[in-house]
Amino acid sequence: MIVSRNLKPGLILHYTWRQLLYYTTLSTLIVILHDVYEIVFFNIPSYTIAALGTALAIFLGFKNDHAYDRWWEARKIWGLMVNYSRAWARQVITMIIPQDNAEYAEMAAFHQKLVYRHLAFVNALRVFLRKRHLYNEPRQRELFEDENTYLDAKPFLEPEEYAEFVKKDNPPNFLLQRQGEDLKWAFQKGWISDYRFVKMEETLVDFNDIQGMSERIKNTPLPRQYTFFSRVFVFIHCTLLPMVFISELGWKTIPVALAVSFVFLALDLIGERTEDPFENRLEDTPMSSLSVAIEINLREQLEESQNNFPPKVKPQNGIVF
Amino acid sequence: MIVSRNLKPGLILHYTWRQLLYYTTLSTLIVILHDVYEIVFFNIPSYTIAALGTALAIFLGFKNDHAYDRWWEARKIWGLMVNYSRAWARQVITMIIPQDNAEYAEMAAFHQKLVYRHLAFVNALRVFLRKRHLYNEPRQRELFEDENTYLDAKPFLEPEEYAEFVKKDNPPNFLLQRQGEDLKWAFQKGWISDYRFVKMEETLVDFNDIQGMSERIKNTPLPRQYTFFSRVFVFIHCTLLPMVFISELGWKTIPVALAVSFVFLALDLIGERTEDPFENRLEDTPMSSLSVAIEINLREQLEESQNNFPPKVKPQNGIVF
Amino acid sequence: MIVSRNLKPGLILHYTWRQLLYYTTLSTLIVILHDVYEIVFFNIPSYTIAALGTALAIFLGFKNDHAYDRWWEARKIWGLMVNYSRAWARQVITMIIPQDNAEYAEMAAFHQKLVYRHLAFVNALRVFLRKRHLYNEPRQRELFEDENTYLDAKPFLEPEEYAEFVKKDNPPNFLLQRQGEDLKWAFQKGWISDYRFVKMEETLVDFNDIQGMSERIKNTPLPRQYTFFSRVFVFIHCTLLPMVFISELGWKTIPVALAVSFVFLALDLIGERTEDPFENRLEDTPMSSLSVAIEINLREQLEESQNNFPPKVKPQNGIVF
Amino acid sequence: MIVSRNLKPGLILHYTWRQLLYYTTLSTLIVILHDVYEIVFFNIPSYTIAALGTALAIFLGFKNDHAYDRWWEARKIWGLMVNYSRAWARQVITMIIPQDNAEYAEMAAFHQKLVYRHLAFVNALRVFLRKRHLYNEPRQRELFEDENTYLDAKPFLEPEEYAEFVKKDNPPNFLLQRQGEDLKWAFQKGWISDYRFVKMEETLVDFNDIQGMSERIKNTPLPRQYTFFSRVFVFIHCTLLPMVFISELGWKTIPVALAVSFVFLALDLIGERTEDPFENRLEDTPMSSLSVAIEINLREQLEESQNNFPPKVKPQNGIVF
Amino acid sequence: MIVSRNLKPGLILHYTWRQLLYYTTLSTLIVILHDVYEIVFFNIPSYTIAALGTALAIFLGFKNDHAYDRWWEARKIWGLMVNYSRAWARQVITMIIPQDNAEYAEMAAFHQKLVYRHLAFVNALRVFLRKRHLYNEPRQRELFEDENTYLDAKPFLEPEEYAEFVKKDNPPNFLLQRQGEDLKWAFQKGWISDYRFVKMEETLVDFNDIQGMSERIKNTPLPRQYTFFSRVFVFIHCTLLPMVFISELGWKTIPVALAVSFVFLALDLIGERTEDPFENRLEDTPMSSLSVAIEINLREQLEESQNNFPPKVKPQNGIVF
Repeated sequence: MIVSRNLKPGLILHYTWRQLLYYTTLSTLIVILHDVYEIVFFNIPSYTIAALGTALAIFLGFKNDHAYDRWWEARKIWGLMVNYSRAWARQVITMIIPQDNAEYAEMAAFHQKLVYRHLAFVNALRVFLRKRHLYNEPRQRELFEDENTYLDAKPFLEPEEYAEFVKKDNPPNFLLQRQGEDLKWAFQKGWISDYRFVKMEETLVDFNDIQGMSERIKNTPLPRQYTFFSRVFVFIHCTLLPMVFISELGWKTIPVALAVSFVFLALDLIGERTEDPFENRLEDTPMSSLSVAIEINLREQLEESQNNFPPKVKPQNGIVF
Repeated sequence: MIVSRNLKPGLILHYTWRQLLYYTTLSTLIVILHDVYEIVFFNIPSYTIAALGTALAIFLGFKNDHAYDRWWEARKIWGLMVNYSRAWARQVITMIIPQDNAEYAEMAAFHQKLVYRHLAFVNALRVFLRKRHLYNEPRQRELFEDENTYLDAKPFLEPEEYAEFVKKDNPPNFLLQRQGEDLKWAFQKGWISDYRFVKMEETLVDFNDIQGMSERIKNTPLPRQYTFFSRVFVFIHCTLLPMVFISELGWKTIPVALAVSFVFLALDLIGERTEDPFENRLEDTPMSSLSVAIEINLREQLEESQNNFPPKVKPQNGIVF
Repeated sequence: MIVSRNLKPGLILHYTWRQLLYYTTLSTLIVILHDVYEIVFFNIPSYTIAALGTALAIFLGFKNDHAYDRWWEARKIWGLMVNYSRAWARQVITMIIPQDNAEYAEMAAFHQKLVYRHLAFVNALRVFLRKRHLYNEPRQRELFEDENTYLDAKPFLEPEEYAEFVKKDNPPNFLLQRQGEDLKWAFQKGWISDYRFVKMEETLVDFNDIQGMSERIKNTPLPRQYTFFSRVFVFIHCTLLPMVFISELGWKTIPVALAVSFVFLALDLIGERTEDPFENRLEDTPMSSLSVAIEINLREQLEESQNNFPPKVKPQNGIVF
Repeated sequence: MIVSRNLKPGLILHYTWRQLLYYTTLSTLIVILHDVYEIVFFNIPSYTIAALGTALAIFLGFKNDHAYDRWWEARKIWGLMVNYSRAWARQVITMIIPQDNAEYAEMAAFHQKLVYRHLAFVNALRVFLRKRHLYNEPRQRELFEDENTYLDAKPFLEPEEYAEFVKKDNPPNFLLQRQGEDLKWAFQKGWISDYRFVKMEETLVDFNDIQGMSERIKNTPLPRQYTFFSRVFVFIHCTLLPMVFISELGWKTIPVALAVSFVFLALDLIGERTEDPFENRLEDTPMSSLSVAIEINLREQLEESQNNFPPKVKPQNGIVF
Repeated sequence: MIVSRNLKPGLILHYTWRQLLYYTTLSTLIVILHDVYEIVFFNIPSYTIAALGTALAIFLGFKNDHAYDRWWEARKIWGLMVNYSRAWARQVITMIIPQDNAEYAEMAAFHQKLVYRHLAFVNALRVFLRKRHLYNEPRQRELFEDENTYLDAKPFLEPEEYAEFVKKDNPPNFLLQRQGEDLKWAFQKGWISDYRFVKMEETLVDFNDIQGMSERIKNTPLPRQYTFFSRVFVFIHCTLLPMVFISELGWKTIPVALAVSFVFLALDLIGERTEDPFENRLEDTPMSSLSVAIEINLREQLEESQNNFPPKVKPQNGIVF
């Protein structure tokens, strides 16, 4: 997630220089052909691009609206993760009550186990989501990335559980299964009533939802039929621009066509990069930062000392991961 | 669902060649009539199509926005299927508890029966949704299709249940009814309390919702009054285009009119194909792939060996079904 | 609901011939005045209608978007009816359990009574919604209609209950009240626990919601201030069109103005007809067809013989009611 | 709420004559200056207002979309009031059950008390919402209004309760508090179980939501920064119109500029009046009519005689309050 | 939140004078260069800005729509705070019931403690949200601000609790944890049943949601890639305007370009200021006013005397904080 109000020109150029180079070369070529060699056959009237404009506006509006919807939904899902994590910790601490005071120490350890395993779940889901799919392979090197490995979940799990965890096909789901089994254990031991058992199981279903909704966004790209054609039609539109401008603008075609092309290019590219919020890129949902915030909240609820808390994630280069 | 970032020209031509042929022929004819025979009566000024443009933008924006909404809602519904399937398996495994340890083996078989019948439900619903309605009969051969038969549900049901299942008017609903009856059996046997009975029945209602929401999208086309007129008005608009372009553009009318027509044609056609997400087409909701993913998750929750899991569905030709 | 992909010209003409006649006459008159009598004072430049265009696009976009939202919400509500009807039948059959096996036959009759009364509710709500309000009186004869009378609910109710039912101010609400009272009876008899009583009452609240949401759409027209002005401004806009076209287009004004007028007319009229989804018209929510589908589903859940099921509703003239 | 399909010219003129007078005078002045005195310096080309048009479309689209959203949300909230009121009455009647048959008469009175107090709540909330805020003071006299006083709640409350009720800072909330206290009383008396107590309390929370959501819309105007600038920019735009039209249109500037101005004026004014749905104006949410409908439904559920029901609210002058 | 219908010119100028100065200077310069020195090379045709217009409309529409969505969502969240606060107070008062009448006084104190701690939570969350982030630092002095310190929560907490509260990393979450622990205490004491314990815990989860949703909006700016480019492109567009206008408008370029620039500037700036609803600015969600309203409601439910209620917040300078 970008937090600085201004984007640095270097950043913008990194992602657009190829296209800008193409449009500059094209305009220059057309100006030379037209003004020096007086070749004019490519000249077209302005209403041709106006006719294209209507359709292009639909494509670009569509792409950006739905890209943002996906991004914001991703953020909402991880907002739910924050809310239900705090609720889960509170429910574990206040609702799991031994019948016998002698079991107090065992209870405290059990509380910590359920809360820590949840922290493992949060980190595991983040890592699970940040893995790249073949078909989402970026077309150019990213300037900024974050590290994401299952080792981040290790401190919160017992060693043998961690060993089993990393071998699973779906590691976060395995942790939810374990949470459910521990609730059953507590129920059979009499630490939670039938009713509180079901209530806490409902909170686990909320985590199922959070995981499943995240996976849906991760695994389902914005329909390629829209993003592909929007990219192609921006290219056609901007290629036609200097052919329209040349007859009246002369050499001014180069800066003006570049400026107008850049605006359309920006719209298309921003949409393209915003649409996938879990790709470990600078526009990402800030899952690393949220994971740390959840860890601090939950350990505060466990009444651990603030000295042991991990440091909060600060923006670097105006970016939070 | 298309996953490759680029669409192959062959694919695009397969679905558009008839229209492209018509527009090329039309433009060529107009160029010949105008430039060779000097017939000009069909000439019209550019503001006529600008006047049409406003209304066309509303039609096309409408069609594509709502087509996408239907497609994305379909994907959300099947995302819920993933989430609640995992929750159902966990609830079956952790909440159905015999009073007597001697019943342990019977319980394990019962757990597997309820989870497997759910896998049958998932596959049955997919097959039920992929059947074609008479009024959704495609107007041309599809390039890629997937196989969907009720046999896919057979491995998850006992033989006599399967025999009854295939004869039903609404097979997936029959399976939910059976799940409910088995819950009643477990309740009467004392394996689930009154409270857990109701909780698990609520999860069945979630599956009712998933089925019903899918059927709603399947059985209710985007209002034909919109899709029909949008198709007709794109045709009128693109037919008028060369009559506008001819006076200034000459032979360039042919490529420019074709390019502009193609953009509008693409908008209309993409909307038309995206609007029905359960028709066994390349833009479909990836229900086959999700069914396999659910199967792997649930069998992992049942602690079956990974060796017996079905292989995950991989994209073929850039498409996932 | 229209299901055929193409609309017949006869159908379109039935609803638009008056307006088309007006616009043809107007254009012809203007052509004659201009070309024959050389009266030109009504000539106006094209940017006047362009200035109108912006505002008209907002009005027409607004009207169609919200008309469709109402239509689709209506369909969603009746989709919930399908889902919860199936759930209600399953809950009745699996959750109402006599303490004593001797009551088995009485229980089966009670199950059937509650499921059949629900079918009466479904049919009663459809009839209740399809009644026409004075202020929604159509301005012209409808081509296709469906029959809707409370007699359709008769086979599902006991005679004395039916007699009371038809006299009520709000017959569907009366049936829900009766369902609640029968649940109380079952609770007092010990056939449902306190907890299952409340759960099934919650399902009745879902039916309250379905009825109330349908009534909301039925009784609250899309704000007249929008639909009225959109109709008036389309009329003004299309009346100005030939005055713009005449100076350059000559006799071609007649077909071109007619074509452009028709597009705007279609947008306005489609919006106007889509906005009220319960008026027994060809664009209606297919409540008749859904009622039959629910009846078949629920009787299948009651394990009745398929031979007695009503036949499914088939499209007639490309329309499903 | 306006229900008649057509708006009367008198109604429209009542709210727009000042502005129409201004625009007519302005156009006439400009025509006279231009044609009679040949003063032309105010002449501006048409693309200046085209450049304004884009931004104006965003402002007006924004204002009307969100005004309608507020209006429709208000109607949805009062739709929930209808649904939950019916559910509340049914729950009161079927769920509050004395242990002892001797208490039957006392129970019936208690049922009626809870249902009647709810009718008081419905009427109280309507009156509470229809009070005018200082900052929502209308800028001109309203043509039609409805009466709203707390006396409408009096028949449904016991005298001493009514006396306390009218003195409260938030009278509707006071009634919900009383309902909760009566539920506690019934719980302590053993007429409702712990479980049914909580269920009915949940229905009270639904009424908290209905009240709070209504208050939110009432107390939070659509951001003034949008409505103010949209009003100002429509004024600027329409003032510029005759300066654009005059050079080509001559005296026709007066009717054409008036027509175009009226369209924009209408868009702005309709948005302005639709945005506040609880101001006792002709576009209001029909709370008076819904209150009577709820009263009839609930008294029918109490099995009172239809003879005592209040008459339904009929449209007057095409308006329902 | 601005409540007065009109904005004062002084207010508008405070936030826009820099930009207006720039645009006036630019236009004047261009007029002088063009008319006095007859330098014309910067002249560009009007269709260049028309081509920019389409893309700009998407950017500005996007920015304002989503800014408003954030603002309205913030208001909805705080609306939920009102609703659930009233429900919480009612539940505390009616559902926490001692077994023994002797405990009546202790119970009343406990009721007050839970309700007052909730008022502390409301005030704490407001203060927590109004703190400024480094990356949201305003670029100019605000004209109106409100005071927000944790001292506002002090009257509602016991001294030692307050001392612990202010030291926490997340003070509002600490209060929810305490509420949960007090519920556990009441449960162990037998004042609430298992079932009511869980119900009230659910209300605490609603407060978790309210806090988490507020934090999501606070901590996640509208994607900077959109707001930055929209600001830049408005600047480019308005800088080009006088170059288009100069050739036909002469000295009139100055007022007309200023008027058009101001419209676009206003759209961008309003979006920019509306998008962050918790920054202690005049467009803020009125959390201070809502906190006082909640306090009055809840103390009325506790049957405290109206004389001790704090005064309601009145608009000052047309603004409510």
